[in-house]
Amino acid sequence: MLNFKLIINILGRLLVLTGFLMLSSAIVSLYYQSADLEAILVSSMICIVFGFFLRFLTRNPDRVPGKKEGYFIVASGWVVISFFGMLPFLVSGEIPSFTDAFFETMSGFTTTGASILTNIEGMSPGLLYWRSMTQWIGGMGIIVMTIAIIPYLGIGGMQLFVAEVPGFAPDKLHPRIKETAKRLWAIYFIFTVAEVILLVLGDMPVFDAICHSYSTMATGGYSIKNSSIAFYDSSYIHYVIIFFMFLAGTNFTLSYFALKGEFRKVIANEEFKFYSIALVLSAVLIAFVLVLVMDFRIPNAFRDSLFHVVSIVTTTGFVTADYNQWNLFVKIFIVALLFVGGCAGSTGGSMKVGRHLLLFKNTITEFRRIIHPRAVIPVRYNGKVVSSDIMSNILAFFYIYIMIFIISTLIMIALGLDLNSAFGSVAASLGNIGPGIGEVGPAGNYAQIPGIGKWFLSFLMLVGRLELFTVIILLTKAFWKK
Amino acid sequence: MLNFKLIINILGRLLVLTGFLMLSSAIVSLYYQSADLEAILVSSMICIVFGFFLRFLTRNPDRVPGKKEGYFIVASGWVVISFFGMLPFLVSGEIPSFTDAFFETMSGFTTTGASILTNIEGMSPGLLYWRSMTQWIGGMGIIVMTIAIIPYLGIGGMQLFVAEVPGFAPDKLHPRIKETAKRLWAIYFIFTVAEVILLVLGDMPVFDAICHSYSTMATGGYSIKNSSIAFYDSSYIHYVIIFFMFLAGTNFTLSYFALKGEFRKVIANEEFKFYSIALVLSAVLIAFVLVLVMDFRIPNAFRDSLFHVVSIVTTTGFVTADYNQWNLFVKIFIVALLFVGGCAGSTGGSMKVGRHLLLFKNTITEFRRIIHPRAVIPVRYNGKVVSSDIMSNILAFFYIYIMIFIISTLIMIALGLDLNSAFGSVAASLGNIGPGIGEVGPAGNYAQIPGIGKWFLSFLMLVGRLELFTVIILLTKAFWKK
Repeated sequence: MLNFKLIINILGRLLVLTGFLMLSSAIVSLYYQSADLEAILVSSMICIVFGFFLRFLTRNPDRVPGKKEGYFIVASGWVVISFFGMLPFLVSGEIPSFTDAFFETMSGFTTTGASILTNIEGMSPGLLYWRSMTQWIGGMGIIVMTIAIIPYLGIGGMQLFVAEVPGFAPDKLHPRIKETAKRLWAIYFIFTVAEVILLVLGDMPVFDAICHSYSTMATGGYSIKNSSIAFYDSSYIHYVIIFFMFLAGTNFTLSYFALKGEFRKVIANEEFKFYSIALVLSAVLIAFVLVLVMDFRIPNAFRDSLFHVVSIVTTTGFVTADYNQWNLFVKIFIVALLFVGGCAGSTGGSMKVGRHLLLFKNTITEFRRIIHPRAVIPVRYNGKVVSSDIMSNILAFFYIYIMIFIISTLIMIALGLDLNSAFGSVAASLGNIGPGIGEVGPAGNYAQIPGIGKWFLSFLMLVGRLELFTVIILLTKAFWKK
Repeated sequence: MLNFKLIINILGRLLVLTGFLMLSSAIVSLYYQSADLEAILVSSMICIVFGFFLRFLTRNPDRVPGKKEGYFIVASGWVVISFFGMLPFLVSGEIPSFTDAFFETMSGFTTTGASILTNIEGMSPGLLYWRSMTQWIGGMGIIVMTIAIIPYLGIGGMQLFVAEVPGFAPDKLHPRIKETAKRLWAIYFIFTVAEVILLVLGDMPVFDAICHSYSTMATGGYSIKNSSIAFYDSSYIHYVIIFFMFLAGTNFTLSYFALKGEFRKVIANEEFKFYSIALVLSAVLIAFVLVLVMDFRIPNAFRDSLFHVVSIVTTTGFVTADYNQWNLFVKIFIVALLFVGGCAGSTGGSMKVGRHLLLFKNTITEFRRIIHPRAVIPVRYNGKVVSSDIMSNILAFFYIYIMIFIISTLIMIALGLDLNSAFGSVAASLGNIGPGIGEVGPAGNYAQIPGIGKWFLSFLMLVGRLELFTVIILLTKAFWKK
């Protein structure tokens, strides 16, 4: 039986934390003297008081969380903070619909960045700040989840990718993991501050710089401008954001090694190599087509192409152009990139570069196995043998991802979406990207999707964000058996 | 080093056999006094003479074929007979283009049924007969390949599905395999004759009945009418064809047991159960939408829905209606069915029902493994444990299939096709189905695809037909190493 006392206690803590972070948005409201101050104060008080109340109800929980509690806490944690995190939007009346407010908040905390807002710039500054901040908080959650919880639960091969983290032991929730999380959060924080400074140096207003840095480092993609990053007509700003999206999509443990000066570890990492090469090659290919077929000037073609390739692969979802209007080949190539994802251990979503790399390696190995059926030929990753259990788990991950994608697309079509929009909204939600193709493309938004579709897409964001298994396992009989 | 003397000897035999089978089309030409007689005679003589010449050149080959020869013979066999099988079309001038003639013949021998003909009824009867016959010959080739060669090569988990075949031993090319192949061919022949009789009883002309039975049993889908089976306005004929498509998509070893009266083995077979249930459920779902959304009458809705579900899942590709005009949900559901495929050990193509069943079972098992990480939990199929090697091979098959599909769709788009047509042509060629969606949908054909695209799609038909690994392995370095 699940220890609900413990679970509620931890959810209470999360709520108190969320409330205090929300309260910081009030500073923005005060500064700008905006109308959302009261809504933010009331909402954050509700979070804090209710959170303390839950903790009081369940004080002195009697044991440490087991695996099953782990699954439940992770999945319900994201849901609970989304329900409370949407309060400022609802209370202020700036997002009057319950469904829309939940969608926008879940999209924030899962660092998806899919928005139902049709006029972003019409929102009050405090709410815009909170909206960007939900992504930044989500990113912090993901870092601790991918480093500490998911590998400990043993799903999706994540134990493989974070094996080098100092203090990491896949078979128990190591006490030193707290230290690790703190160090990685420090890097997350330093990168965010660095991006703010560099953006301000490029003449972006401080407020804009903070909000965009929040969503960059979380690979979230919420912008405070209707036209996203296209609003800023400056190559410098575009390249700064490209650079930080790239960092956010990189395994944070590698950034940790890089900051410690251990560059050899960074260069030797196969996932990082594959990620960097794939980004550059894709950007060059698309730039080539843009120049050749669509008469772009070369510097613009490369900048726009690199921006969108990095934005999509890292699952950020910022845009500087409407790629829906680009050549069909480029468009479909970008659609294919929706399934790539950032590095494991980054804040990026989707399938993850490392899984693709291992699936590819396994395929090559499979041919060698067929030719030499008696030999035992393992897959190697960063010089170490990958156990067949982990490989099988990654293959199952791929299968589940594709199946969820196909069935969900059919569901969205049944709800009345056209093919492109159904395909795009599902790929972008499941992959935590944000903009897709069709009506939910870079120039569109999720406002016109029917209510039930918004709830379903919110569910997909959660499923994708938590590496599929964490959510789906809660729906299995085996989980609830003693 | 490959034993090319042996390989050429066997290809020579194949050519002689093809030549004699081609010669039988001359009887049709004689009967109808049609203009194609000379072309057929000349073409079959070329096959026979050239085949005997190859055999003479390589007489007394010194050893039995090894695995590597196996791969090479299977892959090159299909290519060689396609190059020679297209001669009647070229020599008669009725398909003047070399590319088109090759495409049409490869599509026949791989039992795909994708056609470049814009006016099928304008062809001479002897050529139409040969066109249908290429499919029937292809079907014979597939039976011996799936029962004898592919399991012996150990690819794609096929050894699992044919494990119950009498005389089957996965680790060597058993001498009794010849007996097995003969028995299964006998069933193939009996079913073909039975279908001819039942179609003639439904007032289909004898010639039409023979041609359609050839393409039904091979799950090929070549019709001799421009409007395919829609030409015959008879529910009886439609249901007869549905029944035989269903049989052709069933594992032939199960039909063998059924004919021997061992029904328990048929009913106990998990793949067959899954196949039957999936077909009925899909047909009911589509019929439901057709009645509700498109105002079809119930009997018509069920008949048309069942016809297309069975036609697509078995990868036959006959049509009785233009499903391109149906509701979007139904259309995309049908697109998803393009990836299902018939049972393993049938003449059906695509991924195969059995692989889907095992992928699904493995996914369920994966969740149980995560919950009980210390327990060893195997996947079971028909009551037996599936080895992790086979499971890993099936997972790799799925991954390769999806990757080939995505990359090929991008290639077809780069060649100028619109998204639907690119998607449809690739799915239908790789799955050996025939009609897809878009311009290559039920009412369209492959005529307008650029030449290079036709060659590429022909290659995909071959890759799909030979269970991916057989062709791709020839492109690996490991294969050509000593």
